[in-house]
Amino acid sequence: MNILVLNAGSSSLKYQVIEMPSQHVKCVGLVERIGMEDAIFNHEIDNEKHQEVLPILNHEIGLQKIAKTLLDKKLGVINAVNEIKAVGHRVVHGGSKFSKTVIVTQEVKDNIRDLFDLAPLHNPANLTGIEIAETIFTSAKQIAIFDTSFHQTMPREAYQYAIPNEYLSTHKIRAYGFHGTSHKYVSEKAIDFLNKKSSKIITIHLGNGCSMSAIKNGKSIENSLGFGPMNGLIMGTRSGDIDQSVLFFLMKKLNKSVEEVNNLLQKESGMLGLTGFSDLREISEKAEQGNTACKNALKLAGYRIRKYIGSYTAVLNGLDAIIFTAGIGENSAIMRKLACENLNFLGIDLDETKNEIRSKEIREIQKTTSKVKILIIPTNEEIEIAKQSYKLIK
Amino acid sequence: MNILVLNAGSSSLKYQVIEMPSQHVKCVGLVERIGMEDAIFNHEIDNEKHQEVLPILNHEIGLQKIAKTLLDKKLGVINAVNEIKAVGHRVVHGGSKFSKTVIVTQEVKDNIRDLFDLAPLHNPANLTGIEIAETIFTSAKQIAIFDTSFHQTMPREAYQYAIPNEYLSTHKIRAYGFHGTSHKYVSEKAIDFLNKKSSKIITIHLGNGCSMSAIKNGKSIENSLGFGPMNGLIMGTRSGDIDQSVLFFLMKKLNKSVEEVNNLLQKESGMLGLTGFSDLREISEKAEQGNTACKNALKLAGYRIRKYIGSYTAVLNGLDAIIFTAGIGENSAIMRKLACENLNFLGIDLDETKNEIRSKEIREIQKTTSKVKILIIPTNEEIEIAKQSYKLIK
Repeated sequence: MNILVLNAGSSSLKYQVIEMPSQHVKCVGLVERIGMEDAIFNHEIDNEKHQEVLPILNHEIGLQKIAKTLLDKKLGVINAVNEIKAVGHRVVHGGSKFSKTVIVTQEVKDNIRDLFDLAPLHNPANLTGIEIAETIFTSAKQIAIFDTSFHQTMPREAYQYAIPNEYLSTHKIRAYGFHGTSHKYVSEKAIDFLNKKSSKIITIHLGNGCSMSAIKNGKSIENSLGFGPMNGLIMGTRSGDIDQSVLFFLMKKLNKSVEEVNNLLQKESGMLGLTGFSDLREISEKAEQGNTACKNALKLAGYRIRKYIGSYTAVLNGLDAIIFTAGIGENSAIMRKLACENLNFLGIDLDETKNEIRSKEIREIQKTTSKVKILIIPTNEEIEIAKQSYKLIK
Repeated sequence: MNILVLNAGSSSLKYQVIEMPSQHVKCVGLVERIGMEDAIFNHEIDNEKHQEVLPILNHEIGLQKIAKTLLDKKLGVINAVNEIKAVGHRVVHGGSKFSKTVIVTQEVKDNIRDLFDLAPLHNPANLTGIEIAETIFTSAKQIAIFDTSFHQTMPREAYQYAIPNEYLSTHKIRAYGFHGTSHKYVSEKAIDFLNKKSSKIITIHLGNGCSMSAIKNGKSIENSLGFGPMNGLIMGTRSGDIDQSVLFFLMKKLNKSVEEVNNLLQKESGMLGLTGFSDLREISEKAEQGNTACKNALKLAGYRIRKYIGSYTAVLNGLDAIIFTAGIGENSAIMRKLACENLNFLGIDLDETKNEIRSKEIREIQKTTSKVKILIIPTNEEIEIAKQSYKLIK
């Protein structure tokens, strides 16, 4: 069965066609710069890359271009549109309404729209993707997979903020947690790998965005991102945790507007703010060459992760394994090293040689004497979306 | 040697005369409602309480009243003003300039004034106290003891936020930590009690304000309060940690002003926001009677402490003892119980019977099998101020 996995951003469409249950990826692609005369269409099949620059003025034209390519004799993977049995849509915010993957109905779409305020950069684009896919892949089931739903098992003490109760009941202000599809995927892989259903695991997703989760017996009980995708770990351009007093100082004493402070903390902070660079490979290289700001920033980022490892070990009251995943988590040996430093009291003991080995496989990188397993597990949100879509409709 | 310990607030003056080095407290008192026609003057000597309602229109009149009372035949403790050899002033914010207690000079006063923006509610009153004391206790040394100075040993990774570096270098935006006088006092008591200089200790100060510190070999390396006194633990009316996204949502979507959000998080949140009550005794009673909001709030507050215990255990890479102190820490058995729950993986095992015993002494409340000591140590910031003043001038 062919499933089209679709991730619609504000000016982009990412897609894969995945055959289920084999999990065979038939093709992958990306439409960038939607809205422009010189949009870029990327498509890859059998390891061959195809690129085209052309005007793609809106998401509808973009998705039509994708559909046409999927049917193409040379670049395509299907003979008729109805061979796509389901479209699995990534939706960032599911609020408190969606604790599971669902088949899209009018009510589901209304609910996604109701959450625009909570994810203004993502949910509108996600909904647009669904509405256009409905008109093109008319015989396919449309499925919505939410980044937040895996974290809906968090207990109240993990999600409620200490502000007046009505903000939770009326405005749904609470911690939701993000990157749920990734945390779910790698924690399930870990549980299989460890063959340990009853387990205490910390998953560390370090990519463009970064977050950590505490996973108890397969269920998320904590995530370091909260109401929005800004807090917790230090990210490429986002500050992560910061004392709210700082925001008031910036607004009241330095006369910055709300929007300026929001921009500062989302786009000019994190590793970029600390070093002038946002790419971790560049920062790591400069640190090795002796750049003080880069060395300092890596230290700060690792320290922040260690604090969360401690915090989550406390709420799990134990620890079987920590999992590194996503671009940085899978590829940055230095970040893993800094994140695991001086944690032997918690049973965490990294093998620095194993940590340096590059591979695309699941692997253990702890010392043989380490009580806690340290795993690298490549994440794959598209496969997870395909799996969940398939499970729902098969 | 007589030392006058003075804590000047915006409309109050708290004082004690302490004889050093015996640490004998000769009298204690409090002037409240300064600026009003019906200000209240409280003075206690030999366990006898004296109260007077009278107009005290400014701090100068207040401190003159105190001086006159100290000289009084019946209520007083000295025969001449010059018997006060030092006045130890509590100053809330010492910024990065003061890592130690200092004798007040013009430069010190200028520096305290430079920090008004960082502690607008406290430093101006603290400086007023100093300036008036200089005119009344002319032969005494004026000493400034800073709430932040004990935390000046925090490493950079603990105090720097992940925002552009210039905010640290130019505007001194960083975590300072507070309640330093209390954390110092109880951690030193703990080190004496445990007879363990090389130690890893977590101090938990739960009073009107709440904060926790990680103390390594007697030095503070972390405090849960940051740039201002709002974040970290859940307090009586302050939210403690909250995702900054919530602030932007309140301002941008609910159209609240910066000042309204500041007020909300400082004065209407915390235990008050969660329950409608700010007094922990009341909240505990109502929780026992089955009030759901009160039960929930206690659970949240305990959970937050546990997360910090885990986080600080990680950065200490070990744990010898946790210390409860200040009003709630010393007196609330339920809060201590909730803060220690399900932490046996970290070696923390509370003896619930010992936890219930009331006393004013230092005591251990862990099970005999607990690897980590759990101590209750009554704090005494006034004695600490007197000790530091005495040490500086003797």
